[in-house]
Amino acid sequence: MIITGDFMKHIFKYRARYVECDQMGYVHNSVYYIYFEEARSDLLRANQYSYSRLENDDGVMLPLIESNAKFKQPIKYDEEIIIEVSFSYIKKISCKIDYIIKKLNGEVACEGYTIHAFMDSKKRKLRRIPGEVISIIEKYLN
Amino acid sequence: MIITGDFMKHIFKYRARYVECDQMGYVHNSVYYIYFEEARSDLLRANQYSYSRLENDDGVMLPLIESNAKFKQPIKYDEEIIIEVSFSYIKKISCKIDYIIKKLNGEVACEGYTIHAFMDSKKRKLRRIPGEVISIIEKYLN
Amino acid sequence: MIITGDFMKHIFKYRARYVECDQMGYVHNSVYYIYFEEARSDLLRANQYSYSRLENDDGVMLPLIESNAKFKQPIKYDEEIIIEVSFSYIKKISCKIDYIIKKLNGEVACEGYTIHAFMDSKKRKLRRIPGEVISIIEKYLN
Amino acid sequence: MIITGDFMKHIFKYRARYVECDQMGYVHNSVYYIYFEEARSDLLRANQYSYSRLENDDGVMLPLIESNAKFKQPIKYDEEIIIEVSFSYIKKISCKIDYIIKKLNGEVACEGYTIHAFMDSKKRKLRRIPGEVISIIEKYLN
Repeated sequence: MIITGDFMKHIFKYRARYVECDQMGYVHNSVYYIYFEEARSDLLRANQYSYSRLENDDGVMLPLIESNAKFKQPIKYDEEIIIEVSFSYIKKISCKIDYIIKKLNGEVACEGYTIHAFMDSKKRKLRRIPGEVISIIEKYLN
Repeated sequence: MIITGDFMKHIFKYRARYVECDQMGYVHNSVYYIYFEEARSDLLRANQYSYSRLENDDGVMLPLIESNAKFKQPIKYDEEIIIEVSFSYIKKISCKIDYIIKKLNGEVACEGYTIHAFMDSKKRKLRRIPGEVISIIEKYLN
Repeated sequence: MIITGDFMKHIFKYRARYVECDQMGYVHNSVYYIYFEEARSDLLRANQYSYSRLENDDGVMLPLIESNAKFKQPIKYDEEIIIEVSFSYIKKISCKIDYIIKKLNGEVACEGYTIHAFMDSKKRKLRRIPGEVISIIEKYLN
Repeated sequence: MIITGDFMKHIFKYRARYVECDQMGYVHNSVYYIYFEEARSDLLRANQYSYSRLENDDGVMLPLIESNAKFKQPIKYDEEIIIEVSFSYIKKISCKIDYIIKKLNGEVACEGYTIHAFMDSKKRKLRRIPGEVISIIEKYLN
């Protein structure tokens, strides 16, 4: 975690896997969205929460409404990267998460975002999320 | 579907996807097991059944007990292959499925098998499968 | 392929795989980008070209500059979908491809796009693509 | 790394990802083979070698000849596991690697192996591997 001005970014470190690379020798475009997912899960975990607790205990799913990635530099097999995670906004039934993937030399490899709805996992209807999760998110609002 | 002696093999045609190939330029070893899964699903579908019907309507899951693959020849991106599916045995609560992946020239690319348990999807206990599924499987016993 | 007004859309039919679905029971968000990839490969193939020919014979790669998806309705395991593909633009060294994923009842499940650069696969520098490919793309300009 | 009698096992810790789980709620059977791959890569890395060095600098690929997994207990999303890696044998142009996946309570979730050929990445012919890699492997011979 780093503090940038008056908000925090969560920092997730990762090393690109063999299976994630295509025959161009680079991480496949679809895999970046898995990196985003791992990074946001790790943010919750670093704050003593977890997505599995949210889904199983709280009965809340966070399906995606939209996702976006801008690819700046390719990532190779075994390359170490860091993913910075922060939030653009949180509303009653949705939130927007921002991601920046950097190489170890600081170069930006990818910028992206995901927008999530808050959904009751049984009724499959929109609902609010627990206050404790809101408090976590508010620390990372950019 | 082809008839070999006195039993049938199900034939599943497939074309290797870009995302399935690694930086050696070949289909990744883990992907063959997805091919096996697609091939056995297609067998059910060709017999007017489906794995989703089994899981949702009949409440039966088919978790794997074991899987195995012998890799003979690599498969390239966009290469067309056929997967032959038949059954070694069906018992009360398990079955063994055999797969042969061939190139269009008849060369064998891979041979493998999966062994499945029959499990109640709610109780998560072993159980029998519907007679209709047994009848399908018996047609393909090798 | 369908003709909409004065341009064509390529139609790619698909059935969601088991491995593509997560524990919410829906196709995972990252997999939509694989569907996009399969759909644009299929467009080339339907026009007697192929991405492997482009990459191997012509020495051209089409790395992504950006990708985006808006998720409207979830897709379940074994569900049949169609993916409509057309092009927003083609420039000297890039193009933008649009995708609409529909359920069999016509409902839109997802809308998205990918922007690609044209790159020399050996020099890893930007370059033009073969005229034959441009001609194909122009038929699908929306 | 742990020492068992007179040989060492490499220990790779991992946490199951969301995308790796299917709609049964368990890690998909094909993903175990990716875990095996990550575990053997990590063994090399822990010994100041790497698979990328092997493939890029030494020009050696390690394609699979065979892979096998016996599934004992399912693994859930977010569950922490450890993967123990050791070698059954190393020959001139092949080796066999053994894997045991355990839950944190010590229960065995999966046992498996992979057999690899040593191949020249350019000539695509069988060859020996560097002595330095042989020395690493010999420490983990079970």
